[in-house]
Amino acid sequence: MTSESASSIQMNFQTCPEQYQHWNLSFDGAIAELILDVNENAGLFPDYELKLNSYDIGVDIELYDAIQRLRFEHPEVKTVIISSAKDTMFCAGANIRMLAGATHGHKVNFCKFTNETRNSIEDASKYSGQTYLCAINGTAAGGGYELALAADYLILKDDGNAAVSLPEIPLLAVLPGTGGLTRLVDKRKVRRDLSDVFCTVEEGIKGKKAVDWRLVDEAVPTSKFDERVRAKAKELAGKSDRPADALPVKLHPITKNMTEEACEYSYLRFDIDRKTRTATLSLNGPSRKLKDDLDGVVEQEDQFWPLALARELDDALLHLRFNEPSIGTLIFKSTGDVQSVLSYDTFLHENAEHWLIREILLYWKRTLKRIDVTSKTLFAFIEPGSCFAGFLAELVFAVDRSYMLEGQFENDIRAQAELVLSQSNFAVFPMANELTRLESRFYGEMKSVDNARSLIGKRLEAPDAEAAALVTYSLDDIDWEDEIRILLEERASFSPDALTGMEANLRFVGPETMETKIFGRLTAWQNWIFQRPNAVGDEGALSLYGSGTRADFDKKRV
Amino acid sequence: MTSESASSIQMNFQTCPEQYQHWNLSFDGAIAELILDVNENAGLFPDYELKLNSYDIGVDIELYDAIQRLRFEHPEVKTVIISSAKDTMFCAGANIRMLAGATHGHKVNFCKFTNETRNSIEDASKYSGQTYLCAINGTAAGGGYELALAADYLILKDDGNAAVSLPEIPLLAVLPGTGGLTRLVDKRKVRRDLSDVFCTVEEGIKGKKAVDWRLVDEAVPTSKFDERVRAKAKELAGKSDRPADALPVKLHPITKNMTEEACEYSYLRFDIDRKTRTATLSLNGPSRKLKDDLDGVVEQEDQFWPLALARELDDALLHLRFNEPSIGTLIFKSTGDVQSVLSYDTFLHENAEHWLIREILLYWKRTLKRIDVTSKTLFAFIEPGSCFAGFLAELVFAVDRSYMLEGQFENDIRAQAELVLSQSNFAVFPMANELTRLESRFYGEMKSVDNARSLIGKRLEAPDAEAAALVTYSLDDIDWEDEIRILLEERASFSPDALTGMEANLRFVGPETMETKIFGRLTAWQNWIFQRPNAVGDEGALSLYGSGTRADFDKKRV
Repeated sequence: MTSESASSIQMNFQTCPEQYQHWNLSFDGAIAELILDVNENAGLFPDYELKLNSYDIGVDIELYDAIQRLRFEHPEVKTVIISSAKDTMFCAGANIRMLAGATHGHKVNFCKFTNETRNSIEDASKYSGQTYLCAINGTAAGGGYELALAADYLILKDDGNAAVSLPEIPLLAVLPGTGGLTRLVDKRKVRRDLSDVFCTVEEGIKGKKAVDWRLVDEAVPTSKFDERVRAKAKELAGKSDRPADALPVKLHPITKNMTEEACEYSYLRFDIDRKTRTATLSLNGPSRKLKDDLDGVVEQEDQFWPLALARELDDALLHLRFNEPSIGTLIFKSTGDVQSVLSYDTFLHENAEHWLIREILLYWKRTLKRIDVTSKTLFAFIEPGSCFAGFLAELVFAVDRSYMLEGQFENDIRAQAELVLSQSNFAVFPMANELTRLESRFYGEMKSVDNARSLIGKRLEAPDAEAAALVTYSLDDIDWEDEIRILLEERASFSPDALTGMEANLRFVGPETMETKIFGRLTAWQNWIFQRPNAVGDEGALSLYGSGTRADFDKKRV
Repeated sequence: MTSESASSIQMNFQTCPEQYQHWNLSFDGAIAELILDVNENAGLFPDYELKLNSYDIGVDIELYDAIQRLRFEHPEVKTVIISSAKDTMFCAGANIRMLAGATHGHKVNFCKFTNETRNSIEDASKYSGQTYLCAINGTAAGGGYELALAADYLILKDDGNAAVSLPEIPLLAVLPGTGGLTRLVDKRKVRRDLSDVFCTVEEGIKGKKAVDWRLVDEAVPTSKFDERVRAKAKELAGKSDRPADALPVKLHPITKNMTEEACEYSYLRFDIDRKTRTATLSLNGPSRKLKDDLDGVVEQEDQFWPLALARELDDALLHLRFNEPSIGTLIFKSTGDVQSVLSYDTFLHENAEHWLIREILLYWKRTLKRIDVTSKTLFAFIEPGSCFAGFLAELVFAVDRSYMLEGQFENDIRAQAELVLSQSNFAVFPMANELTRLESRFYGEMKSVDNARSLIGKRLEAPDAEAAALVTYSLDDIDWEDEIRILLEERASFSPDALTGMEANLRFVGPETMETKIFGRLTAWQNWIFQRPNAVGDEGALSLYGSGTRADFDKKRV
C-alpha cells in the first residue's frame, strides 16, 4: 500500500531530462515539445502500474522540472507543445490505484503540487513569453484534461476517438480537483449547466461539440492535425518577447547535505526540532559582492545568489511538505548584510526587463506563493544579524506572525535587527489574490500601505517596524526567550487540521482569483470528499474502482 | 445522542414571538431590542443543556423568525439592538455537547442555516434601513462573537470581564465556521497576524485592546454602557428611510398539509419520489388578479401572492434540507398564467421604493440565494402550462440544468411552455457573487447577456429559449420521458458528496464576496475538519470537551 510506502519513501524533487522516465523533451528552434510517454513500470511507489499515460507524483516532478528548465535553460523557446506519445490516449489523469492506496496526507500534498505545477504553466504563458499549447492527440480524461486546461490553447484531434472528459464524479466519486471545475467555468467560460453535463458524462465529449461547448479551442482532423499544431505553435511564438540568442542558464543539481535533523544548502539551511515540531529555515544573504553588470550575472548561471537561493528554498519547502508531515511550523530566519541584499534587490529591479532577471523575479513570486499555500504555520523571527530587506522582507509579510528583537541579545555582538522595505514589497510579488502581501496585510487601509511606502530604504529597527505595523511583535531580549518558547509550545498543542483551516482562511483576504479559488474553495471541497466514506471507504468508489463491484453510496446529502 | 435524535425529530421552522423560548423582543419606537435569554432546558434535542446562553438550531430558528418579523411586521423599526439577558455572558456560541453529538449532516446544515441567518442580519443593515447594533454586555465567545460580527456596529462593555473571543481552535479543534474567520479579515479588516493571535487566545480580548485590534467599534464602561448603546442606536436610526407610520404586515402561520410523500401549501406543493430521491416543487402563479394599487396590496398582508409564495418556498427548502437528507435532487416546476405573473412582476418593480415591496423583493433575493447554496442537485422542468416569467424565471437560472418541452405532450391541452424575461433577470436578484444569475450563466460573455436583455417581454418557446442559451435542453415530447427518466436515474447513482462538491464549485463563477467565501472556502474547510478524527473522533477535541481529558492529536499536517 502506498499508505505505507509514502511514509517510508523519501521524496526527491531533483531530476533532469537525462533521468526522465515519463517525458520526452525536444527542441526545434523557438518551439519545444514536451511529450508524455509514461513508463508504466516506473511509478514512484511499487503498488501500481501507470497504465494509459496516467501519472503519479513522480511523473509530475519531472513535469515541474521540465517547466523550470524550459524557462531558464531555453531562453529561445517561445511555445511549448504538450502532447502524448501513446496511440489513442493523451493522458488518463492521476493513477487511480495510486490515489486509492495513498494516505489522505499524500493525496492532499499530491494535489497541491500538481496544482502548483499547472499554475506555473499558466504563469509561463502569461508572464514569461513561453506559451503552452496542448495538442490533445488522444483521449484526455480527468487529470489529463486538467493538464490540458492549464495550456493557453487546446487543439483536439478530431478522429472519432479522442475525447476530453472529467469522469471523476461518475467513476470515482471525487472531484476533478486539479483546477478542473474552476478552469471550466472561470477560465474557459463553459456555461455552468453544460459544465454540469460534461462532468457527469463518463465518456466525455469529442470533436465539434467540444469546440461548441468551449472545452477546446479547435478540433482538427487527423490528416491536418500535426500541421495545424505546428502552425499555431509558430503563430503563438510570434507574440513572444523572449530572446532568440541569449545564453542559456543551466540548472545544475542542487547540492545539499542532509541528516535526520538538518539540511545544509549553499545559502540556506534548515534545522528540525522534533519536540516543538518546527523547522527553522535560515536564509543567507549573498556571499559575494554583486557583479554589477548583466554579463557578469549571466556568467554566474545558477550560482547567482537570488536564483540559487530560490532553488534551494523551493526544494526545502517541497521536502518539508512531503517528507516531514509531522513538522507543523516553519520559522524563517536570515543572516547577512542588509546593504548587500539591497544591492541585489536594486539590481533585479533595474534589470527586470532582461529575460533572465525576469525569470528570477517570477521564480521568487512562485516560490513565495508556494509558501502562502503551505499547510504549516509560518513564523518569522527577525533577530540581530538578519537581512530581511527588499525581496527577502516578503517572507516577513508571508508569515502568520512575525517577531522582531528590540536591541541585542546578551553577549551577542551582531548588529541590531533591521527590516528594510524596497519596491519589492509594493508590486513585484503579488499573492494569488493579486494583492501584494502588504496590501493583504493592510487590507482596506491604503493609508497604512502608503505609510509603509514612505519608509522604503529606511533601516527600521524593531520599534519602528512595530509602529508601522510591519511586524506582529517587537520584544526585548528579556522577554524573547520565554515568549518564543511559549509560542512554539502552544502552537504545537493545537490540532494540525484546525490550524490548516484557519491559516487557509486568514491568509487570503479580499479579492479572489482563479488561483485562490482552486487552492481555497475547490481544494477544500476535494479534501472533504477525500475523507468521505463514499469515496475512500472500503466500499467507496475509489477503493472499488476496477474491481467490477459498484460502490453502494450512503445516499444522504450533506 | 443527537445523531439518533436528529434523524427522528422533524424540524419545524415556523414559530412566533409568543412561542419563543430563548429570545425577548421588545420595542421602543424606532428601536427594537432582541435579547438573548436562552432557556437551558429547552434545547431542541434532549441530550444537552443550553448553558451560558449557548445555542442550538432551535435558538437560531427563533432568531431567524424574529429577523423576518422585524422587517415585515415592524416597518417603524430602524435599529435593532442585539444583547443578552444573562449577567456576564453575552453568548457562548453553538452548544458544544450538541455539536459533539450531532451527525455530520446536521452539523453542516446547522452551520449553513446559522450562516444564512447572519447574512440576513447584514442584508437588513445594508438594504432594508434596519441596522443591527450589537451591545456585547458580557463575554461573546465563538459563535457568540460571530453573531456580534454580523451586526453593523459593536459596542463592548468595558468592565474588566466582558471579552470577545474565538476559542474554537484551542478548545475544540474546529474553526470558527459561522463566518468568523472571513468577517475578521474581510469585514472588520483585522490584520491577519493579529487575527491569528486572536483565534488562538482562549480567553479572548477585552476593552481598549479589542478596539485597537478592530474587533469591536467601541468599549464603554458599565456606568455609561446603556446610555451609549441607546444613543448610538438613535444615531443609526436617523439614517434609515423606513416609514414611521406604515401599516405593519403580520406574518401569520403558514398553512400546509404534509404527508410522508407530499406537502401542500397555498401556492406551492412538493412531491417526493423516494426511488429517484427527488422532490418536485410545483409553484403556482397568482390565484387572483392583481389589485393594482398599493393600498390593496398592503391590505392583503401576507396573502399577497409574491410574499405568500416566498414564505412557502423558504419553508419548503428548509424542510427538505433538514428533514429529507436522502432527497438528492430538487425539481422546480410551475403552473399558472404567464401574463398574470408578469403583471405582478411589473407591479413589484414599479413600486420597488415602497418599504413593503422592497422587503418582498429582498426576501425573494434571499430565498433564491438559499436555493443557490442548497446541497442538492437543482433541475427546472419547463412544461406546458408553466409560468416561468419575470422573477419566477430566476429559478430556471438558479438550477444546475434546465429542460424545456418543445410543443405539447400528447393529449395535453395546456398551452405550450414559454419562458419570459423581465428586468427581474438583469439586476434585482444578485447571487452571493454579486452577479445576476444570467451574468453568471454567461460569465465573461456580455454579448449573450445583452442578447437576453433584448428578449425582455418576448414569449420564448423552447427553440427560442435554447437558441438564446437560456435553457440547457429543449426536447420534444417523444424524447422527454426517456431523457428525464435517464437523467434522474443517473443523478441518483452518483455519490452525493461528489455532487455537493461539484455543484458548490460550478454554481459560483467569477468574482467572490465575503458571502461566497463564507459558503465556499470557509464552509468547505470546516466540513473537512468536521470529518477529521482530531475534531470528531472518539478521542477528538469536540468529543472530549468538558471531560477533563485533553485530545491527543494526530500531529501530521495535511
